[in-house]
Amino acid sequence: MQLTKQTLNQRTDQIYDVLVVGGGAAGLSAGIYLQRYLLSTLIIDKGKARSHWMQELHNYLGLPPDTPGRDVLKQGKAHYLSLDGDYLNAYVEEVMDEGETFAVRVRIGRTNPTYAVFRSRYLIAASGIIDHLPKLADMQNVFDYAGHNLHVCLICDGYEMRDQRVGVFGSHESSLEVAFSLSWFTPHITLFTNGEFEVGAELRDRLTSNGFTLIEQPIKQFLGENHQMTGVELADGSIVKLDAGLVSMGSKYHAGYLKNIDLEYQGGNLITDKMNRTSHPRIFAVGDLKVGMNQVVIAAADGALAATQIWRDIRRAEGTRRSPISVNAA
Amino acid sequence: MQLTKQTLNQRTDQIYDVLVVGGGAAGLSAGIYLQRYLLSTLIIDKGKARSHWMQELHNYLGLPPDTPGRDVLKQGKAHYLSLDGDYLNAYVEEVMDEGETFAVRVRIGRTNPTYAVFRSRYLIAASGIIDHLPKLADMQNVFDYAGHNLHVCLICDGYEMRDQRVGVFGSHESSLEVAFSLSWFTPHITLFTNGEFEVGAELRDRLTSNGFTLIEQPIKQFLGENHQMTGVELADGSIVKLDAGLVSMGSKYHAGYLKNIDLEYQGGNLITDKMNRTSHPRIFAVGDLKVGMNQVVIAAADGALAATQIWRDIRRAEGTRRSPISVNAA
Repeated sequence: MQLTKQTLNQRTDQIYDVLVVGGGAAGLSAGIYLQRYLLSTLIIDKGKARSHWMQELHNYLGLPPDTPGRDVLKQGKAHYLSLDGDYLNAYVEEVMDEGETFAVRVRIGRTNPTYAVFRSRYLIAASGIIDHLPKLADMQNVFDYAGHNLHVCLICDGYEMRDQRVGVFGSHESSLEVAFSLSWFTPHITLFTNGEFEVGAELRDRLTSNGFTLIEQPIKQFLGENHQMTGVELADGSIVKLDAGLVSMGSKYHAGYLKNIDLEYQGGNLITDKMNRTSHPRIFAVGDLKVGMNQVVIAAADGALAATQIWRDIRRAEGTRRSPISVNAA
Repeated sequence: MQLTKQTLNQRTDQIYDVLVVGGGAAGLSAGIYLQRYLLSTLIIDKGKARSHWMQELHNYLGLPPDTPGRDVLKQGKAHYLSLDGDYLNAYVEEVMDEGETFAVRVRIGRTNPTYAVFRSRYLIAASGIIDHLPKLADMQNVFDYAGHNLHVCLICDGYEMRDQRVGVFGSHESSLEVAFSLSWFTPHITLFTNGEFEVGAELRDRLTSNGFTLIEQPIKQFLGENHQMTGVELADGSIVKLDAGLVSMGSKYHAGYLKNIDLEYQGGNLITDKMNRTSHPRIFAVGDLKVGMNQVVIAAADGALAATQIWRDIRRAEGTRRSPISVNAA
């Protein structure tokens, strides 16, 4: 059920089999599998999954290529709730490992928040990442285009940018390297530093020899209308016409609640085995937070793998199901 | 485009980037990703993907839990064709490794077949498996229930069998071990050997001590109507009432066309790395044919991984896209 401030006290005295941090594609898929394994599950979601921002999921098998990411999340949440999974809109502040269980402290609500602690035997970190965006004076100007034709994922949207005039927006020198992969799709590439970092001679040479344009002055604003970005106005008032943009500024990793637990990372990503178990035997990581490709279909598969391994763990430890049922075969 | 006997000659003189054997969930997902990477792809499908037989996909994120498997395949094929991928209904007889390319010999049509050879640089084996079913005098009697409530996948359908009277249909002693996992969902388990194999004392003891029933005489027929199996009639005329069945008789692996290529297997499954590359650098395996869980969402993710790795291979080897486009940025 959907838990609220009024009903959550019904759940704070029980131990869930699995608590899932994050209700994006990976967390919802895990929840669906877990409930179907007859394991008790709580998904805690703070909102704003990365896929929520995708206007069109072009590459997810089984759905038309203009399906908004939020439709997948909506269907997945309804599916999960239909299987009697618990779901709470809240922010996970901290996870404490108590040995047999985890204690998970959450904050519910933004204004006048309340706090609660839930307990579970296993934890799935499905809290993902969110892309850094160009920092302009008017951020609404950025949000107007992000997820439309201001893309954040080359694998997802390279096809949409084929033969287009594309602006690449970086945050440091190596972030511009994506231009060489982008050039598979289009040769018309302009790179923007927004005046925030230097580009050394070696990279500058490679960019130039590939025919790319480098613009190092600050960006005043994106131009366009109806969520379609058509170019960039620079600080000096000049205008660069573009058909699309690719933001390559790295990501914020939503894993702060794991700070007290010793886990293996590669960069900001959690390292897992093939069933998505982290270096902690009762913590799994799925979706964008783990090492691997950031794709909705892979996140969904990650959830299935983690849920299945947790079921195997618990089943092997307990033998048969715990709920009271008659013992004799018919 | 959908190739036919009339049009396939237009394609036999070109070299595809990737030939995908099998148009199930894994193959179609790979095809969608490959075409979006601007790689030329041919999917060859003999029909009857395992998911085609699934009446309801209960656990695929983004789709209602009563979605037939064939709907996913239909949507996926339309999606792939909309991206200008080539698709041929045919049977792949043999793959020959020519060094830089593969030559793939196919048979088109059942009566008065024609033959053709296609060439590609990479091969994705997405041809899957199909479950062995109980061998009864009237096989139509089996087909009437298979994929409805005569299940073949515990992970997929354990939830549907919870607390039900379930018959397990095995093909050899170890195939009955699935009953112990099934007992997570229901204690009401009857095992059938169909008179085809012996059960040793050790397993017999474990089955009995778990409260399972073992029936070793031949099965005359399944009983039921409207695709809902309600029990089994045995050779002696006695009837065992059931609510569902679980077939555990192993699978046929569709990999005969790879017989001339030295690949690493684990049982019938191809061994792959995390991007689904086999022990051959230009052959990938995805879906049920590779080691791992047999789930539609995992097959779809497999296709995305293999396609992405092939794109990386080709992109790194070639630098930029091959098609003639103007070189200068706008």
